[in-house]
Amino acid sequence: MSESTHHEMWEKLNMDLEAHDGLLEVLGKFYGDIYLSQENRLKGAEYLDFVLSEVHGLRIKELQDAKAQGRKVVGTFCVFVPEEITLAADAIHVGLCAGAEAGSELAEQLVPRNTCALIKSFIGFKMAKLCPYIESSDMIVGETTCDGKKKAYEAFNEIAPTYVMEVPQTKSEAARDLWKSEVLRYMKAVEELTGVTITAEKLKEGIKVINGKRRALQRLTRLRAASPAPISGRDALLVNQISFYDDPVRFTAKINELCDELEARIETGDGVAPADTPRLMLSGCPMAVPNWKLPYVVESSGAVIVGEESCIGTRNSRDLVDESGETLEAMIDAIADRYMKIDCACFTPNQERLDNITSLAKDLKADGVIHYSLLFCQPYSHESMKVDKALQVEGIPMLSIETDYSMEDVEQLKTRIEAFVETLA
Amino acid sequence: MSESTHHEMWEKLNMDLEAHDGLLEVLGKFYGDIYLSQENRLKGAEYLDFVLSEVHGLRIKELQDAKAQGRKVVGTFCVFVPEEITLAADAIHVGLCAGAEAGSELAEQLVPRNTCALIKSFIGFKMAKLCPYIESSDMIVGETTCDGKKKAYEAFNEIAPTYVMEVPQTKSEAARDLWKSEVLRYMKAVEELTGVTITAEKLKEGIKVINGKRRALQRLTRLRAASPAPISGRDALLVNQISFYDDPVRFTAKINELCDELEARIETGDGVAPADTPRLMLSGCPMAVPNWKLPYVVESSGAVIVGEESCIGTRNSRDLVDESGETLEAMIDAIADRYMKIDCACFTPNQERLDNITSLAKDLKADGVIHYSLLFCQPYSHESMKVDKALQVEGIPMLSIETDYSMEDVEQLKTRIEAFVETLA
Repeated sequence: MSESTHHEMWEKLNMDLEAHDGLLEVLGKFYGDIYLSQENRLKGAEYLDFVLSEVHGLRIKELQDAKAQGRKVVGTFCVFVPEEITLAADAIHVGLCAGAEAGSELAEQLVPRNTCALIKSFIGFKMAKLCPYIESSDMIVGETTCDGKKKAYEAFNEIAPTYVMEVPQTKSEAARDLWKSEVLRYMKAVEELTGVTITAEKLKEGIKVINGKRRALQRLTRLRAASPAPISGRDALLVNQISFYDDPVRFTAKINELCDELEARIETGDGVAPADTPRLMLSGCPMAVPNWKLPYVVESSGAVIVGEESCIGTRNSRDLVDESGETLEAMIDAIADRYMKIDCACFTPNQERLDNITSLAKDLKADGVIHYSLLFCQPYSHESMKVDKALQVEGIPMLSIETDYSMEDVEQLKTRIEAFVETLA
Repeated sequence: MSESTHHEMWEKLNMDLEAHDGLLEVLGKFYGDIYLSQENRLKGAEYLDFVLSEVHGLRIKELQDAKAQGRKVVGTFCVFVPEEITLAADAIHVGLCAGAEAGSELAEQLVPRNTCALIKSFIGFKMAKLCPYIESSDMIVGETTCDGKKKAYEAFNEIAPTYVMEVPQTKSEAARDLWKSEVLRYMKAVEELTGVTITAEKLKEGIKVINGKRRALQRLTRLRAASPAPISGRDALLVNQISFYDDPVRFTAKINELCDELEARIETGDGVAPADTPRLMLSGCPMAVPNWKLPYVVESSGAVIVGEESCIGTRNSRDLVDESGETLEAMIDAIADRYMKIDCACFTPNQERLDNITSLAKDLKADGVIHYSLLFCQPYSHESMKVDKALQVEGIPMLSIETDYSMEDVEQLKTRIEAFVETLA
């Protein structure tokens, strides 16, 4: 990642320059090893490499420039925060840093040691002054999807004021009412933040833009059903990761270009791995940048990843907001309905997720599934057992992995995954 | 616990007689060591000893007799299930088994290993056929208070059909609406189960009975402010534990008698420990029968326990339902409001709990607080850090304990607690 030209900006953001330089250096090397070493990579990956290299640089500069022009930045941790509404208020919607151990030890001053790596990471990034997105955010939005995050936001709120949306735990009518009221409350909060009144016209445009992003990601998902696999799982994950950071219109155009290239590849039977390479789908907890450990291990173990059933994956792109509404009320209803379709493990029951996983695995012609839970993530650990049963019924083998962000278990993971891949070959 | 006369009943309940006899034997010995060894115990403790000795015996026979007369039994795991409503439908409301490791290994077939001991216990009790309350229940009611329980009920539902109430996660107006709709849904479910139509008159009576139980427990709490402590923490915990099992009218009368005895003791300056004994309050996760490990260790370490801030403690008795309502609608509102006052760690924010803990500690003249979290209980582990800070402001020292149901850490706990008690003396 480029460092030299952005120091002044980072300093203004009150970041720890020395530690941040160190982080970028490590990440740059890590990225080189995991991404730049790939063979037969897509031309469209240049976009991914560039965005990633400037994810703390040029993109932050764009945010700062937008802020200078009076626009606001909303930072989020979860796919439940309705991006359509943020956009409708001319604000910028970004994901916040997580996915690395940076600052995690500091985080244990605020949350228990037995907290998942993702939560410790976002707190650690803030405490260690390493996340330019947090420092650029005019509003930080949390949500009540799991006990860990719900309670961590209370502590986080003391160092970074956090607006919390209540996500219900069932899909009853009353739960949907609660969620709709939360969507409306969010809309008011964003209007207050930005001073912009959200009109039907603006919201319609926001819906269109975000649906466009989702359609591009859906297209990518569909193309990955081809054999040989036309794109590596690592690059596809990166696409999904970048979808949380880059400008949505630019991102959509670039991903559609990348999909054009994939279509051409598929036509000529070109791929990133031979057609007989075992095809695996990942399922479970989200992998935030730069959490590439598991995909790297999998794709270094003789398999290729053909899908990611996760919030940083199909969960965030599968459902569109109905675009037929013309009034603000109708659009809010459509937004509430779309988000209530999310099959997060926070819901009970959550049969939808099991159905979605089995049908996605079949659509993508996956030979097996690796279920990934972060240590201490109770919702996904519980569902791991149910996913396994559902896949067994379909005759699809599953390997359950529980890990965190440390590199200590890489060899052990590699051994287990290689053994799993061998059974599929 | 008496065994001989109830075998036929337990057999009809399809329990594992041999394993259950073994459990009762162990518990009997455990109870003898922890309870019967106490000095200067109250006369009223005879009631506690008797109920406990017959908790799987005569009390189950009462349930069976009531069932034979057409009454229904509702089994619950949480203080959020409105007992008033159960009673208004002429049904019996009981807590279900948890609090021991019995069957916990079996439970790991259904829930992840990293699940708290309480959850593994209730699943284990069912799988090992050791809980006559589960086997007597016509309806089992769970709730969404924590990720662990919420997801465990999905697996539990496969072996014991479980009705789940959605408890909201904030105290907003919309959350209260959701909760009220859940209270109404529960009322309908109980009416359907029992065939009884809940009238205003019946609900008024249910509210009166359960408020009576709460008033008796409040009285007990107040009397424990006296010095020397007139009752041991172990016995007071047992009172709270029994409140989930025994008939509420009988329980209320017996606890009021016990409070009369306490008042007489206080008048004469009699107590269970010298007046200069360090006074500790317990705070945190509920301790279900027979989870007496921590109180025993504390009271064997030169301290006396003067209060339990827990669901099996003040959380379940502090708030009354407003009795002024005359219509069903008004009473349902009063019930919804009362339950929304519960300061469970499932809520965010949950400043009420911090305020309640500090004021209770002061009211009870506690010299210190022991915060008790079950391993892997995220809500209470997170709040432990906040409770510590809140108590520091008041100059009240706190010791944070994380443990489970195993006896392996008893010596280690004793060392830590003795050291803590020494700092208070």
